Amino acid sequence: KALKIGMMPADGIGREVLPVAQRVLSLTPGAPKFEFIPLPAGFELFTKTGVALPEETIRCLKEECDGAMFGSVSSPSHKVEGYSSPIVQLRKNLDLYANIRPVVGVRGTRDEDKWVDTVIVRENTECLYIKSETIEDTPNGKVAKAIRQISERASTRIGKKAFDVALARQEMRSRLGTAAAVGQAKVTVCHKANVLSTTDGLFRESVRAVKENDSISKGGAGRYHEVEMDEQIVDSMVYRLFREPEVFDVVVAPNLYGDILSDAAAALVGSLGLVSSVNAGDSFIMGEPVHGSAPNIAGQGIANPIASIRSGALMLEYMGYTEPALKIYRAVDHVLREGNVLTPDLGGKATTDDVEKAVLLALGA
Amino acid sequence: KALKIGMMPADGIGREVLPVAQRVLSLTPGAPKFEFIPLPAGFELFTKTGVALPEETIRCLKEECDGAMFGSVSSPSHKVEGYSSPIVQLRKNLDLYANIRPVVGVRGTRDEDKWVDTVIVRENTECLYIKSETIEDTPNGKVAKAIRQISERASTRIGKKAFDVALARQEMRSRLGTAAAVGQAKVTVCHKANVLSTTDGLFRESVRAVKENDSISKGGAGRYHEVEMDEQIVDSMVYRLFREPEVFDVVVAPNLYGDILSDAAAALVGSLGLVSSVNAGDSFIMGEPVHGSAPNIAGQGIANPIASIRSGALMLEYMGYTEPALKIYRAVDHVLREGNVLTPDLGGKATTDDVEKAVLLALGA
Ligand SMILES: CC(C)[C@H](C(=O)O)[C@@H](O)C(=O)O
Ligand SMILES: CC(C)[C@H](C(=O)O)[C@@H](O)C(=O)O
Repeated sequence: KALKIGMMPADGIGREVLPVAQRVLSLTPGAPKFEFIPLPAGFELFTKTGVALPEETIRCLKEECDGAMFGSVSSPSHKVEGYSSPIVQLRKNLDLYANIRPVVGVRGTRDEDKWVDTVIVRENTECLYIKSETIEDTPNGKVAKAIRQISERASTRIGKKAFDVALARQEMRSRLGTAAAVGQAKVTVCHKANVLSTTDGLFRESVRAVKENDSISKGGAGRYHEVEMDEQIVDSMVYRLFREPEVFDVVVAPNLYGDILSDAAAALVGSLGLVSSVNAGDSFIMGEPVHGSAPNIAGQGIANPIASIRSGALMLEYMGYTEPALKIYRAVDHVLREGNVLTPDLGGKATTDDVEKAVLLALGA
Repeated sequence: KALKIGMMPADGIGREVLPVAQRVLSLTPGAPKFEFIPLPAGFELFTKTGVALPEETIRCLKEECDGAMFGSVSSPSHKVEGYSSPIVQLRKNLDLYANIRPVVGVRGTRDEDKWVDTVIVRENTECLYIKSETIEDTPNGKVAKAIRQISERASTRIGKKAFDVALARQEMRSRLGTAAAVGQAKVTVCHKANVLSTTDGLFRESVRAVKENDSISKGGAGRYHEVEMDEQIVDSMVYRLFREPEVFDVVVAPNLYGDILSDAAAALVGSLGLVSSVNAGDSFIMGEPVHGSAPNIAGQGIANPIASIRSGALMLEYMGYTEPALKIYRAVDHVLREGNVLTPDLGGKATTDDVEKAVLLALGA
């Protein structure tokens, strides 16, 4: 039985790079059989139909699909009544509570002197993304308010996910015989509890409790005590990520900080066009390149498809298909290391097509 | 009549670097006469007395001082009942609504290939910093909420400040005969209106209106139309700041984004120990190094005093004493360019004292 994957290219370069990921997935040796289902979503769809994420798209994802991929969505340049970002809606609707964003340099390239091999584990359902906003007219002009929600439940489950990712990475390293960038599996909790003592205080305490309760109450049966834990205030986190990226293994953060951190980390590996993610729930995985719709280059056939290709592989990995995922990672790394077929974001002259061909060749597909 | 400056070293290295700034200010040729008034504040003070910012400190600042300097404050590692950051309280109490943070590389050092010369103009009174937080117990565990406030009034006045800073920089450049890093004075509005369409939408519209209303309604009498304006979504802003810092002149941002952005920009110039700021209201200026209390190096005499020295100069500049401020900037630049007297954060072996002496020497003091 084929895996059914809902495909939402959405806007801009999403439409150019998601089809590449689809073809690479189909042609990867050892990958499961796929059935790809194209599904409408996006800001352009909204401007045409008044709906950014159709009910039918959600229904199909929930009832028929085993997984999904999302491309990228355009941002309106003015407030548009009734519009709400489809990617944010999707995360909430499918309860994809963890946004997992690995950022890794490529051995053998100039990035090696500042080695980056980190995963941002971003809470994906709350914080300011609950989009509870109001505005009122006052004698002093308009005053707008947004609610930022941090719950023990969401913070705990994202904390667990971060420790799980840290352990899985450790295991993978020992399987591949590679050394950890940091000495040992580590989770860094990112917050701003020095100002937001209640909300970010709860986030910090909840993640700490994941480790503490695991090792104490379960009498050593849990494995989180193997993972080191430390913390960084978000502003200092961004600073240190740039100054000494090699000290970070897994970073867990509330939604908005995670959003910012993953773009910051992307700057370290040369291009947003390289950075993949999955939006993960307990029973559904959606791959998504971290980059946006890039209106300035859309339609020119020069968008970097690597973020999407890697996101496809990451989706596979999180669905349990580790072997074909590893094949794709290695093929991509090979192309990057060779350095002959690079899109303009990486300083090259290759097209989206060229990169697809190079990856397929490296895959032996 | 001497200028009265309230000095709040507060915690950690703040106590080591603020006295250096004080001595440099006193000894700068052409500077006004100063009277420095030591004032208590800080987290350590809180742990001893239960008060982080005494009423008397506020009273003295408001009634007696012409300006102030703040060092750095420690962050509690656990939630502490009744504690509220004194720096956040000071900004609110004195209505220091603009946090102005210039980040500039040093010509003639290795930073020159990625040239940074930008000013972060951070709104300093609202956003999540209003600290309106609640927490409740629910059947699913604790749920905490914080209110993020964005008002037309605060966004408009910070917008104006950003355009003023852009024009002042342009003027300074033409006076010094230096070229603009970007072609022309420019204000970049940083927001996340694609998700926070109401709050960040209001911020964006208010800043846009500052330019639009200035050039239209005042029939060209205003000068903001000379300044270019564009925008960046905050995640993409952090990314682009690292990839192409040279395209940013003045960046205006709501409070929390500004906090994160200034640390990001600091990473580009080699060290947080170099980055200065002023908290500016309509009639009061408070200098503040951007770095924290650095508990890991506090007490060792190796903290970099440059951020504080520059913050003293910036305070002078914003109080209208441009000439002595420029002398201090040039002395600091000279020391950095020579590169023989650098503290460990910059890869050197110098002490706080050594840097003070080198700056005083360069000042001809
Ligand atoms: C497009 C936008 C709503 C989205 C976000 O803020 O989550 C994007 O920046 C991301 O990181 O996936
Ligand atoms: C210490 C902290 C409250 C403060 C802030 O968040 O504003 C600091 O990070 C800063 O940038 O001045």
